[in-house]
Amino acid sequence: MVPAGATSTISGVFPICPTPFLENGDLDIDTFDRLVDFYVECGVHGLIVLGIFGEAAMLTAEEGMIILRRTVARSAGRLPVILGTGNLTLRDLASLSLQAMEEGAFGLMVAPPRGVRTDEQIHTAVARQMKAIGPDVPVFFQDYPPFNDVVMSVPLILTLAREYPQIVSLKVEDNPVLGKITRIRQGLESWARPAPTLMVANSGIYGAPALRRGADGLATGFSYPEVLVGIDAMAKQGDIEGATDLFDAHLPMICQELQPGLGLRVRKHVLWRRGLLRTPTVRQAVPRLDATDIEEIDWLIARGERRLADLGWEKTESGRWVPAAA
Amino acid sequence: MVPAGATSTISGVFPICPTPFLENGDLDIDTFDRLVDFYVECGVHGLIVLGIFGEAAMLTAEEGMIILRRTVARSAGRLPVILGTGNLTLRDLASLSLQAMEEGAFGLMVAPPRGVRTDEQIHTAVARQMKAIGPDVPVFFQDYPPFNDVVMSVPLILTLAREYPQIVSLKVEDNPVLGKITRIRQGLESWARPAPTLMVANSGIYGAPALRRGADGLATGFSYPEVLVGIDAMAKQGDIEGATDLFDAHLPMICQELQPGLGLRVRKHVLWRRGLLRTPTVRQAVPRLDATDIEEIDWLIARGERRLADLGWEKTESGRWVPAAA
Amino acid sequence: MVPAGATSTISGVFPICPTPFLENGDLDIDTFDRLVDFYVECGVHGLIVLGIFGEAAMLTAEEGMIILRRTVARSAGRLPVILGTGNLTLRDLASLSLQAMEEGAFGLMVAPPRGVRTDEQIHTAVARQMKAIGPDVPVFFQDYPPFNDVVMSVPLILTLAREYPQIVSLKVEDNPVLGKITRIRQGLESWARPAPTLMVANSGIYGAPALRRGADGLATGFSYPEVLVGIDAMAKQGDIEGATDLFDAHLPMICQELQPGLGLRVRKHVLWRRGLLRTPTVRQAVPRLDATDIEEIDWLIARGERRLADLGWEKTESGRWVPAAA
Amino acid sequence: MVPAGATSTISGVFPICPTPFLENGDLDIDTFDRLVDFYVECGVHGLIVLGIFGEAAMLTAEEGMIILRRTVARSAGRLPVILGTGNLTLRDLASLSLQAMEEGAFGLMVAPPRGVRTDEQIHTAVARQMKAIGPDVPVFFQDYPPFNDVVMSVPLILTLAREYPQIVSLKVEDNPVLGKITRIRQGLESWARPAPTLMVANSGIYGAPALRRGADGLATGFSYPEVLVGIDAMAKQGDIEGATDLFDAHLPMICQELQPGLGLRVRKHVLWRRGLLRTPTVRQAVPRLDATDIEEIDWLIARGERRLADLGWEKTESGRWVPAAA
Repeated sequence: MVPAGATSTISGVFPICPTPFLENGDLDIDTFDRLVDFYVECGVHGLIVLGIFGEAAMLTAEEGMIILRRTVARSAGRLPVILGTGNLTLRDLASLSLQAMEEGAFGLMVAPPRGVRTDEQIHTAVARQMKAIGPDVPVFFQDYPPFNDVVMSVPLILTLAREYPQIVSLKVEDNPVLGKITRIRQGLESWARPAPTLMVANSGIYGAPALRRGADGLATGFSYPEVLVGIDAMAKQGDIEGATDLFDAHLPMICQELQPGLGLRVRKHVLWRRGLLRTPTVRQAVPRLDATDIEEIDWLIARGERRLADLGWEKTESGRWVPAAA
Repeated sequence: MVPAGATSTISGVFPICPTPFLENGDLDIDTFDRLVDFYVECGVHGLIVLGIFGEAAMLTAEEGMIILRRTVARSAGRLPVILGTGNLTLRDLASLSLQAMEEGAFGLMVAPPRGVRTDEQIHTAVARQMKAIGPDVPVFFQDYPPFNDVVMSVPLILTLAREYPQIVSLKVEDNPVLGKITRIRQGLESWARPAPTLMVANSGIYGAPALRRGADGLATGFSYPEVLVGIDAMAKQGDIEGATDLFDAHLPMICQELQPGLGLRVRKHVLWRRGLLRTPTVRQAVPRLDATDIEEIDWLIARGERRLADLGWEKTESGRWVPAAA
Repeated sequence: MVPAGATSTISGVFPICPTPFLENGDLDIDTFDRLVDFYVECGVHGLIVLGIFGEAAMLTAEEGMIILRRTVARSAGRLPVILGTGNLTLRDLASLSLQAMEEGAFGLMVAPPRGVRTDEQIHTAVARQMKAIGPDVPVFFQDYPPFNDVVMSVPLILTLAREYPQIVSLKVEDNPVLGKITRIRQGLESWARPAPTLMVANSGIYGAPALRRGADGLATGFSYPEVLVGIDAMAKQGDIEGATDLFDAHLPMICQELQPGLGLRVRKHVLWRRGLLRTPTVRQAVPRLDATDIEEIDWLIARGERRLADLGWEKTESGRWVPAAA
Repeated sequence: MVPAGATSTISGVFPICPTPFLENGDLDIDTFDRLVDFYVECGVHGLIVLGIFGEAAMLTAEEGMIILRRTVARSAGRLPVILGTGNLTLRDLASLSLQAMEEGAFGLMVAPPRGVRTDEQIHTAVARQMKAIGPDVPVFFQDYPPFNDVVMSVPLILTLAREYPQIVSLKVEDNPVLGKITRIRQGLESWARPAPTLMVANSGIYGAPALRRGADGLATGFSYPEVLVGIDAMAKQGDIEGATDLFDAHLPMICQELQPGLGLRVRKHVLWRRGLLRTPTVRQAVPRLDATDIEEIDWLIARGERRLADLGWEKTESGRWVPAAA
């Protein structure tokens, strides 16, 4: 059984951490410490390592474990750490699951494997995954068709969540996503046992409307995590207009980060400009940003930060943005 | 309600009729009469017009009706005529359905529309189609992922068949297909009311094993329909080895006709060589056969007919093959 | 040869017109007149009818011609009218081309047919289309992978534009799109003869950055065409910050309209709320908006219009927004 | 530079070796020795390990190296060994390339990475792969859209082969494939330096016609490699009718092995029945064969072997089939 409280743990802002590289492509593990500290300072509620944006597919199994260990060690209990499992095979899932929990992970992020189509095929495949992982490991279950080309209906997601109580949270990033959030929310309402939380991703593009519809939080790698924390907090305090103003100020950059392939470059560029990465290096074979791209992103950074200032936020010495009142 | 007996009508060999064109691409409607006569002589059990192989997507609505009328008129009650509905919209499906039945069609061949993925989406879309068609029109329901990219599980197909009694036959051409046939067959066993028949297509590539597993017949445009009739008859008389010998003799040509795009050209070429079409013209923008292709197909025709002769068949004056005993 | 000046004609704002329907799904042709008048008042530079957003695939050939005629008649030379050709076959393209020009269309919007993949296949297929259309009909050539699953490289697009001078404008909506715009722009720079203009679409989501990179205009069905005209005008007057402020104010709604399937409903709902459509009816089988969706869209309308007012725009009695200074 | 003669080495029959597993899914490395011996006895011309059929995606990097070493050691120079590289990243490709050559591999089998579409994207991606591999490693270049969803035109394949002389052989398994073979063959005719050889795969389904069109050999995991050797030999001796008779006798089983997912099970079952594998275990999450499937495959084995006997072949004591004359 997953520990009591596991369900409500995954709520609020769970950034997908980037994996920092040196210019030669080697892991820049030292930068991880700084990143973890930054996320803690931002007030996020948890961390997801080895997600898509973490370029998990480009890492060896050893590198993955190094990252997990470092993140757990540095967060030192301050933040629950979720481990992405990308497109692991069932065999690897079983062994990783054990290892990850021993290393101090809070749980695993899991998506159905590529190649299944019908409800029956998805059901069978997820059943195998859950069996491989076992009932004691909290699962952050990912509905993410652009990644694995698996489309799940709301009834199927609810069935899976009901059958596998280790699914403590649902990460929904289908497109359209908003109606799906509402329907899942409704489906979870009458549960006797704690229902999984509902997190939205989609690079954050529908973040504010999703929170307005009752999502429990945001799980995205957007390059201003402190802003996500602000949006989430205001929404939960009932100030949805304020949350949406804050969100809208960043939508142009969110749209930039949404671009297939290129978005990874954009995000790492912004994080690098913000001093959070030593280099914007990526391992994935995606086109480089050229001078025009970079000039444009820098212009959007400036515009976004200006709007943030207009909304009463200010930049700390370390480069983090905080509401002026705080 | 569909008429009593509609279910058992779709059984045996239902060729997908080609649509004959003149060299300039105009409809060669006169050739249709000859084709219909030929199919009747071959002993097929029904005809499907305006299927994929009939290049339905390349025809105007008027041309479609001309073809339907001509086929019904010429078959003169000798063969039930099924009308393909390709990727018609719901509006068009409703109006076509009425019109087709008035013109004497036996029923419609229907596949779920492109773009639906989950069981729930497929169920909703098919429900709309069935409502548009109405309960009185026999439906030959097509499971054909290469055409519409819709993959249906066996439980879903059975649910649809149970809910819509107008579905009098199932045309299964998923890949893999054989296990699906067995599972559907098992699922239909215990039905109180007449269960839909089970027809196999896939260009015929698994024809003999499918009949061995209990398929009720073959619905394919293979260029030797009289051979399909022979295979079907032998299989149903219990001579599955003989049926498979006959089938195997044609498998090389079936594999040629299986090629995406090109298969249409191959089939029309063979039918043209056999004197059944005035030209091998197609409307679809598929690559032409070059001299090497044609030489190869002609070589395969010769090899196939030699094996047919080895198996005791002979060619009539009109070019049709018949078992020597007949 | 296409008429002199055809190239520069397609520049600025070219909305994709919706097709208005009555509640029973019949064509609401009367509403077209009002729509055309509205677009003229908004100051758009041309109109595109029978695009994807115009639900071309749901219309009969007759309905298409009725719409074209009505649009041409009502615009009465005030606006060039481009006719979408969706997924017409080559045969239909040839006949439509003639007819459309006789009816007074300015030109055709054409995309490569579904099913071609390699540069060679695309080249061959487009060559056939251009031959069917003929050299005298201005073509607005569409690069739109989400529609036809055809991905074209920049070198291929430039080759096609060079070989077929009837291509007077390029509508680019690949994703990522911005770098593509820059590369095409660079590739067109040194042309001796007038190079095609470069229009951006993608539901407008990268509208402001695209204009900043030198796109000649916007071709999208966004529900506030007058805002697009404002953005385009400011960008061309060099006020890119102002243009982007205006653009950003509408990005939340643009993102709503971007949702696959649902976006069509959202747009028609907004146009209906704005009094431009008699009903928000669509023909396409896309999920309906529920009460939550509608409440959300109405909330976004209110937010968007508030920001528009903040930027100094005001609503005329007829419901059109205009810059206060105007 | 690749060694002289590397080009002509890849010609004839190059089976894709299965990876044997114990019932618990562990590597059954002992069985590899027997398999290699069997392939040598069959007279094949080379071996491909870690291909798709070798379930490369299910193996750890360590297991891959174990298999390579064992195959090289056991073949002891009797057969060139090609190493599949599946969907390795560029980083892994570079390190694997070095390691594989040190371990005695003859060369690498390489396919463009998933996710590239246009000629330009494919060209760039393959250039990166070739740079990572270096000019000294012979490359068996794979055109295999069902695996990576990359479609390459003939001109592009020829360009790549011309630019990268390390490409010593082309493995073509697009669909349709036959015309592609002819066009590539023609394109290679006039080369000054040794042109790459041309191998056909597609599970062997067009094996005989492909050899007739001038393919240099067959690279497939079909479960009767000795039959492939016979077909190849007869075709090269000019007895294309005899080769095709032999081929046709096995086409029903080839079609069974062609089924997506299931084909892997079928092949391993047949190899197991033939005594070449200790278990038919697979690691991939593909549906199991049920009793009906197994009965059917066994029936097809019996039919195929009967036809082989009819064609004058006989079974040796070790279970290998040989032409009676031999």
